[in-house]
Amino acid sequence: MQLGLVGLGRMGGNMRERLRRAGHEVVGYDHHREVSDVASLQELVGKLAAPRVVWVMVPADVTEATIDELAATMSEGDIIIDGGNSRFSNDRPRAERLGKRGIGYVDVGVSGGVWGIEYGYGLMVGGADEHVQRCMPIFEALKPEGPYGFVHAGGVGAGHYAKMVHNGIEYGLMHAYAEGYELLRASEYVEDVPGVFKSWREGTVVKSWLLDLLDRALEEDPDLSGIRGYAEDTGEGRWTVEEAIRLAVPMNVIAASLFARFASRQEDSPAMKAIAALRFQFGGHAFKKD
Amino acid sequence: MQLGLVGLGRMGGNMRERLRRAGHEVVGYDHHREVSDVASLQELVGKLAAPRVVWVMVPADVTEATIDELAATMSEGDIIIDGGNSRFSNDRPRAERLGKRGIGYVDVGVSGGVWGIEYGYGLMVGGADEHVQRCMPIFEALKPEGPYGFVHAGGVGAGHYAKMVHNGIEYGLMHAYAEGYELLRASEYVEDVPGVFKSWREGTVVKSWLLDLLDRALEEDPDLSGIRGYAEDTGEGRWTVEEAIRLAVPMNVIAASLFARFASRQEDSPAMKAIAALRFQFGGHAFKKD
Amino acid sequence: MQLGLVGLGRMGGNMRERLRRAGHEVVGYDHHREVSDVASLQELVGKLAAPRVVWVMVPADVTEATIDELAATMSEGDIIIDGGNSRFSNDRPRAERLGKRGIGYVDVGVSGGVWGIEYGYGLMVGGADEHVQRCMPIFEALKPEGPYGFVHAGGVGAGHYAKMVHNGIEYGLMHAYAEGYELLRASEYVEDVPGVFKSWREGTVVKSWLLDLLDRALEEDPDLSGIRGYAEDTGEGRWTVEEAIRLAVPMNVIAASLFARFASRQEDSPAMKAIAALRFQFGGHAFKKD
Amino acid sequence: MQLGLVGLGRMGGNMRERLRRAGHEVVGYDHHREVSDVASLQELVGKLAAPRVVWVMVPADVTEATIDELAATMSEGDIIIDGGNSRFSNDRPRAERLGKRGIGYVDVGVSGGVWGIEYGYGLMVGGADEHVQRCMPIFEALKPEGPYGFVHAGGVGAGHYAKMVHNGIEYGLMHAYAEGYELLRASEYVEDVPGVFKSWREGTVVKSWLLDLLDRALEEDPDLSGIRGYAEDTGEGRWTVEEAIRLAVPMNVIAASLFARFASRQEDSPAMKAIAALRFQFGGHAFKKD
Repeated sequence: MQLGLVGLGRMGGNMRERLRRAGHEVVGYDHHREVSDVASLQELVGKLAAPRVVWVMVPADVTEATIDELAATMSEGDIIIDGGNSRFSNDRPRAERLGKRGIGYVDVGVSGGVWGIEYGYGLMVGGADEHVQRCMPIFEALKPEGPYGFVHAGGVGAGHYAKMVHNGIEYGLMHAYAEGYELLRASEYVEDVPGVFKSWREGTVVKSWLLDLLDRALEEDPDLSGIRGYAEDTGEGRWTVEEAIRLAVPMNVIAASLFARFASRQEDSPAMKAIAALRFQFGGHAFKKD
Repeated sequence: MQLGLVGLGRMGGNMRERLRRAGHEVVGYDHHREVSDVASLQELVGKLAAPRVVWVMVPADVTEATIDELAATMSEGDIIIDGGNSRFSNDRPRAERLGKRGIGYVDVGVSGGVWGIEYGYGLMVGGADEHVQRCMPIFEALKPEGPYGFVHAGGVGAGHYAKMVHNGIEYGLMHAYAEGYELLRASEYVEDVPGVFKSWREGTVVKSWLLDLLDRALEEDPDLSGIRGYAEDTGEGRWTVEEAIRLAVPMNVIAASLFARFASRQEDSPAMKAIAALRFQFGGHAFKKD
Repeated sequence: MQLGLVGLGRMGGNMRERLRRAGHEVVGYDHHREVSDVASLQELVGKLAAPRVVWVMVPADVTEATIDELAATMSEGDIIIDGGNSRFSNDRPRAERLGKRGIGYVDVGVSGGVWGIEYGYGLMVGGADEHVQRCMPIFEALKPEGPYGFVHAGGVGAGHYAKMVHNGIEYGLMHAYAEGYELLRASEYVEDVPGVFKSWREGTVVKSWLLDLLDRALEEDPDLSGIRGYAEDTGEGRWTVEEAIRLAVPMNVIAASLFARFASRQEDSPAMKAIAALRFQFGGHAFKKD
Repeated sequence: MQLGLVGLGRMGGNMRERLRRAGHEVVGYDHHREVSDVASLQELVGKLAAPRVVWVMVPADVTEATIDELAATMSEGDIIIDGGNSRFSNDRPRAERLGKRGIGYVDVGVSGGVWGIEYGYGLMVGGADEHVQRCMPIFEALKPEGPYGFVHAGGVGAGHYAKMVHNGIEYGLMHAYAEGYELLRASEYVEDVPGVFKSWREGTVVKSWLLDLLDRALEEDPDLSGIRGYAEDTGEGRWTVEEAIRLAVPMNVIAASLFARFASRQEDSPAMKAIAALRFQFGGHAFKKD
């Protein structure tokens, strides 16, 4: 089928390629002209026959503006898909706004990272049945072969919500491996730490794709000596813990993973300054000068 | 090759079967006579040609006594393997004790649970090269096919140490999925929670064997309504956190997973009684009567 | 000076009393007629000479409506104080709204609970200097004697913000004592647990008012056997962790205290159901039926 | 009464002074000759009339050797007190060893730090009634005036156990304030952070001695700019969490406080290196070079 695709970065560019390989007609737009098929959003919309489907795959901070600009040129019966990392709470207001103009809205959480072009993308979809049905050929082409990799999780917002929780879980999974890695490194018992991780890839309870990737990273740099212990966070981890707070769900593991990222970005810890100051005050314990 | 195997429970029984399928001659002993090939440890040792290899696969609390009894009937040049869930710190003293009598010692952490008979067991091995080499045919038969599933992690103790960390990581992984599960259940956004987990099995960053199993569990009981939120712990999680404390490794995620198991077994929380008492004292907040 | 006081519950009622003892003229309104000095907000405003100061001390969920109703009857030059547990983020929009009508706004976080009438209330104040200055006689009467117990923390919102952090810290402090209490109860080493807490009230690093109250609680019920381990949360703890997330501040301790309250209110833990289900799936570990 | 006191460092030296002010006869020994009253342990024992009481107040790593040397020169009916930071688990074996020679043993956890000389020391005592009774005049002189500051917590080991839990709680309390401090520093709402802490010293739920000390520290250095966020730990925090693990007590707050100290001493985090490596592998997220 025909699809408009707005945003051709690391994710969008690969998705266009995968869709074309599957025989779909994709008109892509990006503000980097050299990768763009058209010169403007208007031109993109003009190239598509109504009723249109346009997939927006841009950074979260420009998604709202992009969708508004796009909607202004689209018609009743068209559908906009947001496949970016939007906060789920934006979806329903957005769908209502578009709905007033007769434009359908589907939110899709997309997983798979740089590997998706080859293995397919995990898709979590929210929206009305009729809208999701219309987009199914696209979803079929993007998802991995086989019975998994796609879910219509619920109404508008459910796709981004499921993706948010996916990423929250991902934080926890990664940190569990990371803590185990640090302990093995610290211990005098195990001599071949990369070998241990490699061995776990089959026959164990902890086998996973993340483990495969950690093995790969240790093959490239067995001590991870070229990498600083610093990690950004892209929003979904924070939103997951915020939702846990809203819904009174205990979430020590994912929260600790999130807080560890915050700490990794600090030059020094104000909290630990306070601890050092207190230890000096009550016990005369010397502190380190800053 | 010939192998003595002591302990034919859920793990040992399956291992005997897998070894026999691979063509090895296994003499098994268990105190349950109906599954045992011989009537006693002495008979087991008697049936093996020197130099012997005997694999002990019994509950941690009887491992020490079993090995001592076994060693008393074995000879210089023999090897004892402990494949049970022993604390790594027992391995070196045990190896030294056996070493004085010329008996080799190899410690093996075995993963794979009830699935190992079919897919192979993940093996993490500690011991001297010569001892490990002698046992390799056994390890080859037990491990999964392919390049993974086996590591000679270091000297005596390294096998159990690696298995301990494996289980610590496993606690964290499981709890990350569990927190995500609880949040999805609590939220009004996602309608098809089991469907979300099923979809994640391909194309996502969180795909793993544990996820496959969680999908399986949700197929059997979509709300987990027949299962109480109660979990034992078998030691390795505790030891992992103890080692983190000994080696000054921050371990918030695995520790939180362990503490959640402790909490799951409490009728009521003494700590939260103290919180409720304090809230009443300073704020007049009513407490619930016990 | 003259003060209108709206809300005469556990906090407001005691504050009226403390203010009157200090010689101030307080006109109190409450929807419970038997404690109210006037029949309506209008009557309350009518009894005060302009420029008026009215202190609102009502539950958070009716604060906004109360202030709006009140503002409708007040005049340019008047001041409204919100001393309730409002979220700090409501303060600036509210102040702007009132400011357009010439009404000043001061937010006050009030601590001290049921003990404040006797010992004075800890007051954390946000607002413009001129507004805060006008209210100082009231603050002086409410705060404890001596150099502490009052701070003008910053502009509008700073008072509720400081109070929010105060309560977040309070969660952490309480939980630290509570964990220590539970450990002492569990151990076979210490025979006189209440005696240990009582002893700590002087000469130790952990002495505090909360400890005094815990001692008091243990005097009344040495095993806390009449109290269930169940605790509500009133919002500030949640907001504190939300702010930590917004500002990328690691906050494991206060978050864990908050999550423990969530857990205390669960009949069963969905997360631990998932753990139990997984343990059954990979290891055949029996689970408890629900 | 007469007391031998071994170890005249920051704690022991002040205790000698406080005991002398109370009229007791203290013979002190320290390996620093300039502060020592006698030249050797033998001379110290020789100066005391039987039955003797000798208080040992030396670093934990030399306590065992000091007590053994001391015991060799002492007689049946004498008592040795260990007031140092020994692990509680050493107390019972030590008491048994001394008991065979007729020497009594009392373990005392001592709190109060550099302030104890003035305000008195919080004392937590373990041992047999008859031994504790014999030492009471010493305890009376050391403890603060008034009803608090002393507990006979149980048999041998109970004193160090209670002190261990005291310190574990102390970790949690300090970290709760520290997290609140960091949040206030990070926020744009509160302008006068030191003023907020100072105000909390009266009329609030969080008032405590630690808060008084934090206010003191902020008076000396309002931004704590001269202090590095680095903190050692002296053992009791680790033992507290180890005990929580042994006794299956959930302990997220105190454990998190302990782990934060570990993290404060790391140049870089191996765990976070693994996180950064994983993010690069699955998502192409750039990592910082080390």
